[in-house]
Amino acid sequence: MARIVMKFGGTSVADLARIHNVARHVKREVDAGHEVAVVVSAMSGKTNELVGWVQGMPKATGANSPFFDAREYDAIVASGEQVTSGLLSIALQSMGVNARSWQGWQIPIRTDGAHGAARIAEIDGSFLIKRFGEGQVAVIAGFQGLAPDNRISTLGRGGSDTSAVAIAAAVKADRCDIYTDVDGVYTTDPRIEPKARRLDRISFEEMLEMASLGSKVLQVRSVELAMVHKVRTFVRSSFEDPDAPGMGDLLNPPGTLICDEDEIVEQEVVTGIAYAKDEAQISLRRVADRPGVAAGIFGPLAEANINVDMIVQNISEDGKFTDMTFTVPSGDVAKALNVLEKGKATVGFDVLQHDEGMSKVSVIGIGMRSHAGVAATAFRALSEKGINIRAITTSEIKISILIDGAYTELAVRTLHSVYGLDKH
Amino acid sequence: MARIVMKFGGTSVADLARIHNVARHVKREVDAGHEVAVVVSAMSGKTNELVGWVQGMPKATGANSPFFDAREYDAIVASGEQVTSGLLSIALQSMGVNARSWQGWQIPIRTDGAHGAARIAEIDGSFLIKRFGEGQVAVIAGFQGLAPDNRISTLGRGGSDTSAVAIAAAVKADRCDIYTDVDGVYTTDPRIEPKARRLDRISFEEMLEMASLGSKVLQVRSVELAMVHKVRTFVRSSFEDPDAPGMGDLLNPPGTLICDEDEIVEQEVVTGIAYAKDEAQISLRRVADRPGVAAGIFGPLAEANINVDMIVQNISEDGKFTDMTFTVPSGDVAKALNVLEKGKATVGFDVLQHDEGMSKVSVIGIGMRSHAGVAATAFRALSEKGINIRAITTSEIKISILIDGAYTELAVRTLHSVYGLDKH
Repeated sequence: MARIVMKFGGTSVADLARIHNVARHVKREVDAGHEVAVVVSAMSGKTNELVGWVQGMPKATGANSPFFDAREYDAIVASGEQVTSGLLSIALQSMGVNARSWQGWQIPIRTDGAHGAARIAEIDGSFLIKRFGEGQVAVIAGFQGLAPDNRISTLGRGGSDTSAVAIAAAVKADRCDIYTDVDGVYTTDPRIEPKARRLDRISFEEMLEMASLGSKVLQVRSVELAMVHKVRTFVRSSFEDPDAPGMGDLLNPPGTLICDEDEIVEQEVVTGIAYAKDEAQISLRRVADRPGVAAGIFGPLAEANINVDMIVQNISEDGKFTDMTFTVPSGDVAKALNVLEKGKATVGFDVLQHDEGMSKVSVIGIGMRSHAGVAATAFRALSEKGINIRAITTSEIKISILIDGAYTELAVRTLHSVYGLDKH
Repeated sequence: MARIVMKFGGTSVADLARIHNVARHVKREVDAGHEVAVVVSAMSGKTNELVGWVQGMPKATGANSPFFDAREYDAIVASGEQVTSGLLSIALQSMGVNARSWQGWQIPIRTDGAHGAARIAEIDGSFLIKRFGEGQVAVIAGFQGLAPDNRISTLGRGGSDTSAVAIAAAVKADRCDIYTDVDGVYTTDPRIEPKARRLDRISFEEMLEMASLGSKVLQVRSVELAMVHKVRTFVRSSFEDPDAPGMGDLLNPPGTLICDEDEIVEQEVVTGIAYAKDEAQISLRRVADRPGVAAGIFGPLAEANINVDMIVQNISEDGKFTDMTFTVPSGDVAKALNVLEKGKATVGFDVLQHDEGMSKVSVIGIGMRSHAGVAATAFRALSEKGINIRAITTSEIKISILIDGAYTELAVRTLHSVYGLDKH
């Protein structure tokens, strides 16, 4: 007997037939004798409909947000998960499974007061655990909680992953299964490289990099939370037949286990290749090389909510100036240039250059901590294909390379191959 | 300065433009210096969508209801009002009106545990009154409350009217304005009699009869509640220009005031003509006339949830038998006949007859308590038009007449005219 948290996203509960299918997945685990909590998202499209209504409203003039009152946004948008939790409970009951829905305020899932992007502060798991003891499945509305003002809060888009992991931590679950529209985490995007392989296991740290670098399988926050609380998390498909062989396997169900690196016996040097398109490169030439100049550049960008990445600084030949290069999402280029031009007098630079249509390709692997030459292999392979490297940043377990966007797919396939990820 | 509860139904908040229009109605009262609570329904069509999902689910086998778990039904369906309350709050804020949404569980509106058809047990008005003092408009999700099990309850269809009246009673409001898609209560259905007049005032008792007898303007329960708590209730249109002359009138806004009969100075003998189509008449001939026979007939019908109306009993010529005639909604005829046939041996009757396609036309007026001959006038008028009367029931303030459905419109117009309702 184990205690399992199962999370189903919007596409997995998009209509009544799929909700019924989800109920079959849940029943399988219940029938195997496990204690089960289920976390659900809103039916696919519903959150967008609700957000669309909020955004379609005339903008507030006296409200506490430039766009709308985030507390009202939360009350409106959280209704999507409320509906799914009820529908799934009814579906489970129709199969003879004892189940009930729980809204965030009922458990409660306490959050901070940052309406619209709240962080979970505390979950009292005692009610849920008591109900497990009575054989009842908890069907929990994801994405929502109760703020200190006694009003509904939401965790921001994709927050249901975070809800699931946090609940798994609170009830000390043996496993947190994230059911989604893919059957696991792959060595790279299979739409680019058909030889991409599903990983059996990936470490929290690697998954964090993958999620940060564009893999949409899991939200970054949920991986962070899983890492901190060491919640063993499976990414698996909700679209497989719930009763297919192995689906009820306790230790290794089909999918990818995200876990502590100690659990990964045979570590590969490189685990996966991630990429992010639509990056833009901005360069400031001949910036005065004095203390505080970086703060003078990146402070105002941060205030303007522009997400800066891949910062590279080179000293100029004469040693008096520096060149500062960094990337931002393409959509933020105009805003970033505007901010930088405004600060030109303070910062002091000669030329402001930018290039759009860049891509960032990243090589990720815990094994590279103990292996030399991993970066050199990447540079050589890309060079052989005639791909020009525009910038490089590295961390302990990651090498990110900025290239012309037209070469994205070629670069991904090249790196996937050079590290042997297409073989097993 | 007055304290006003304003209620807007589903068609009044059907889309963002209409919600914006509702906000203008609210702002008008706020600008006039009044303290305002608003009660909203779900956007038109949303409740049906949610109920459709619940009903589309496979039927429960082990649930506590033959159809679905009413607690889950409530969690699902209450989400519709939750959304509207948030959207209207945002619309009000955009006009500079200090407003916030309240869910049933936040106030709380405590109900009994009859999920799906709960009755309001207690409303703590103190929070709302405190916010009034701070100049804040309360935008309250109608139709919902908090059951003793700490879960969401709903009041049954049309429950938002009841929410509004109950809140008006709890905060001791001066007025409860029910905004709807008609501009008041009419002497009869204007689609049948174009000369129907809007009533300025109608007593609680009369409105209760009107609502029970087919007028869809207000829910019966809300009228009962208004009567018990003497909540002065205006029925008025949400589709009129919020800034049209007189709309902000404190004492007599355009619409119909439902009030204590003491407030109605010039009482008419007859106030209105109501009707209900699709009635069926069932007669049991030659029933043994002994004690308990009525219970033997109507007990099983009540148990089968069949709504019996207009019971008429005649003694037969020889005094040993009785004829029992009553009406049921046409949709329940087959079920009723089945129940009666089953009980034939116990009850003992000779013949079971039924006629469908009947209509019940009712003459309503408090004045008839002190006026003789009101019924005779109706019978004569119908007779002159060649309309055959199948059954009659009367109460202190109402005469109901069962006729062939084909004559419904003619009967309504005839009665409307004979009591002078088309003149003023």
